[in-house]
Amino acid sequence: MSKNPVSEITNMEDDFAKWYTDVVRKAGLIDYSSVRGCMILKPYGYAIWENIQATLDRMFKDTGHQNVYMPMFIPESLLNKEKEHVAGFAPEVAWVTHGGSEKLTERMCVRPTSETLFCEHYAKEIQSYRDLPKLYNQWCSVVRWEKTTRPFLRNCEFLWQEGHTIHETAEEAREETLRMLDVYADLCEKYLAVPVIQGRKTHKEKFAGAEDTYSIEAMMHNGYGLQSATSHYFGDGFAKAFDITFTGRDNVIRHPYQTSWGMTTRIIGAVIMTHGDNSGLVIPPYIAPHQIAVVPIAHHKEGVTEAAVALHEELRQSFRAIIDLSENSAGWKFAQYEMLGVPIRIEIGPKDIENRQCVAVCRATGEKRVLPLAGITQSLSNLLEEIHQAMYTKALANRQERTFTADNLDKMREYSTENLNLFVKAMWCGSSDCEDKVKDQTGLKSLNIPFDSQNQSGACVCCGAKAENTVLWGRSY
Amino acid sequence: MSKNPVSEITNMEDDFAKWYTDVVRKAGLIDYSSVRGCMILKPYGYAIWENIQATLDRMFKDTGHQNVYMPMFIPESLLNKEKEHVAGFAPEVAWVTHGGSEKLTERMCVRPTSETLFCEHYAKEIQSYRDLPKLYNQWCSVVRWEKTTRPFLRNCEFLWQEGHTIHETAEEAREETLRMLDVYADLCEKYLAVPVIQGRKTHKEKFAGAEDTYSIEAMMHNGYGLQSATSHYFGDGFAKAFDITFTGRDNVIRHPYQTSWGMTTRIIGAVIMTHGDNSGLVIPPYIAPHQIAVVPIAHHKEGVTEAAVALHEELRQSFRAIIDLSENSAGWKFAQYEMLGVPIRIEIGPKDIENRQCVAVCRATGEKRVLPLAGITQSLSNLLEEIHQAMYTKALANRQERTFTADNLDKMREYSTENLNLFVKAMWCGSSDCEDKVKDQTGLKSLNIPFDSQNQSGACVCCGAKAENTVLWGRSY
Repeated sequence: MSKNPVSEITNMEDDFAKWYTDVVRKAGLIDYSSVRGCMILKPYGYAIWENIQATLDRMFKDTGHQNVYMPMFIPESLLNKEKEHVAGFAPEVAWVTHGGSEKLTERMCVRPTSETLFCEHYAKEIQSYRDLPKLYNQWCSVVRWEKTTRPFLRNCEFLWQEGHTIHETAEEAREETLRMLDVYADLCEKYLAVPVIQGRKTHKEKFAGAEDTYSIEAMMHNGYGLQSATSHYFGDGFAKAFDITFTGRDNVIRHPYQTSWGMTTRIIGAVIMTHGDNSGLVIPPYIAPHQIAVVPIAHHKEGVTEAAVALHEELRQSFRAIIDLSENSAGWKFAQYEMLGVPIRIEIGPKDIENRQCVAVCRATGEKRVLPLAGITQSLSNLLEEIHQAMYTKALANRQERTFTADNLDKMREYSTENLNLFVKAMWCGSSDCEDKVKDQTGLKSLNIPFDSQNQSGACVCCGAKAENTVLWGRSY
Repeated sequence: MSKNPVSEITNMEDDFAKWYTDVVRKAGLIDYSSVRGCMILKPYGYAIWENIQATLDRMFKDTGHQNVYMPMFIPESLLNKEKEHVAGFAPEVAWVTHGGSEKLTERMCVRPTSETLFCEHYAKEIQSYRDLPKLYNQWCSVVRWEKTTRPFLRNCEFLWQEGHTIHETAEEAREETLRMLDVYADLCEKYLAVPVIQGRKTHKEKFAGAEDTYSIEAMMHNGYGLQSATSHYFGDGFAKAFDITFTGRDNVIRHPYQTSWGMTTRIIGAVIMTHGDNSGLVIPPYIAPHQIAVVPIAHHKEGVTEAAVALHEELRQSFRAIIDLSENSAGWKFAQYEMLGVPIRIEIGPKDIENRQCVAVCRATGEKRVLPLAGITQSLSNLLEEIHQAMYTKALANRQERTFTADNLDKMREYSTENLNLFVKAMWCGSSDCEDKVKDQTGLKSLNIPFDSQNQSGACVCCGAKAENTVLWGRSY
């Protein structure tokens, strides 16, 4: 009989970072490997990724995208072709110098991202406007040699998807960039119960080589921001650097326009820190590896195990449901499935059987509900959706309570001191100097320029000059 | 309007290797990248892998396995822990020596296979018999620095799955090894229509570090063998090298027993070379990216496009079905879907609409069948299964016609000269000397010792000594 897992978790109010690491380890999501900054995704952690991946992959296919696979290596000369891009990534790549016992004539890096490989391929594949668009995506791992790492949030190797598309017109490419940002926002809000703010990154925070970078930003339970996905519009910059051309409808040779967009295993960190509590994980219903855990009560009494097994058999037709028939105490099991964040625990004991009912306990809200066994599938299906909504609403309320508006730096500093972690909305003139100054003086960095606060009119929070955009500022992972 | 793609394919009778390369390229399965030996899986090639992967992943989960993800890097000291294993792999690994601008204190290889990483993890995770078994699998890419490469068959980087399991007893681990070989055989025969021969590898052909290696061997259309998957029994060799122990039921500390098993994108090469013909690919129905292609005939005539679209809408509820409404000629479309190996082409024209029917043309057999539109889903579902069976039967017949039995080396040489590519079954005493001599003198290498010909009694085809096993000999990829 194992000891109560919950007692080993640090309270999030005492030390949020330690709470996070405790939860990640005790819930069996990851293990560290002997390679610095590389983690092992254990079955429970990987199952969350598989569910996110399956959902997102379906959304990509529904919007006309196709999966491909590019090599993991990039020759140094290929990486060097786009100047801003190489400057952004070269300092943090892993270099392969030897194959077997032979020194390579040219060293190769392990992909930190694959724009260069897709561009090289597109240059060969695209001749005419008839070859456009190409709407490609790949699922793989990438390597970035980070100095400090944290499970899911920052790793030297991580899993992700990277979409790379190429279009006849700038307008089409811009539409694609925003369409995919929307897909990411939908995933977060409709499947992960994580509310996000869509917006454009400032020039300083753009992806290396992009004309515009867009992001979705989420607020964690502790008030920190977390960039949850990005979508980039490249214009024809990469096409020019890689000499990608096509013959247009007017018979003129032109450069096409490109985008890329990505989401990583980092999103699992966002899910943990948005919804988790001092009892452990709280996993959103639609991506939970186990949506329902059936726990028989007094299972040595006649008929209990049979009834629990029969109920589980029924539920697994429609849900990812498990049953725990082990000899551990009911109390231990309750704590265990709470720690694992299973959305619904079903208790069924002698009295329930007599009354043709069971008890559903919701992890997110703590609510207990007695449900008749007749029609149980429909009741639980509704309950999972209710739980999803409750989780989303709670996360949104947390963000709203911690979001302030400021029209001068003193006010920003004041908010920032009183509420260690928060979002502040404040207008900005567009200069990098002001952006740096805000960060130096308030500790808050620019997250994005939310779509709903573009093209306004006001004064920069820093220099007082004319400003058209409101920036979302915050501390962030 | 593009030119007829089929005219660009070399006849397989003239040059099988060139036919293979032509088909792979013209059907758009892959492209080469600028990294030697690394290929790009284009959408159509990747879609085949996705369908194989989905099928196999379900089979793994149905047999109790869980997916995980291990880092792609292995520190040199970790790779060195098991002597036979490192000797087998070190000559062909890619070495990472630098992270960013810094030289690493210890170089790391990109995984050629992940036994060492799983062992390191198991050593930490396993304390008691209660922690056993662990039935893990991962989907990833691996790197082996091969000198000569061919699309799918031999690449410096390839996609695969690797299962790694660890058990309380040798018996359990042995059962697992054979269970997974069976799963692979099922995949090949029930989904890919590729008949395989299950057997044990000779000592010489074992995996580096394994006690026993088992394989499934398929025969390609040209008579070459292709090892389609392997499953290894490790005994407790790795457990000893990596110091993995557990407290047994009797309170004694013991070493557990391990297995590993893998299948790669190579299997796509097997599918192409088993079923393809001079018109291009012939893809087995259950993994075909497009199972059905609807081609309207005389589609400018009134009602044809509408009827074709309506039929396609109905079919895509149950099948992976596409429709071609382009302005290309019907003949061009026929050639195109033949080249792509789409199992069923549906033609529907004015006369068919009048008669409430359509014409189904089977890629594998060339058979044309008039089918009533009423009940079309059921008819096509049956037809896909029929096609699968016909493909399997044809491949099996090819293997049977090219499989001979010999009881002396002269006979083997004779068969081998008359039939350039074939399988020969011949008894073998078990010595590596005889195995080498057979290869030198006949050009045939040992593929495996088929399960159905073990424990017999006879004389070695080479030295005449007492032999208990029949070996399957052949040329192979």
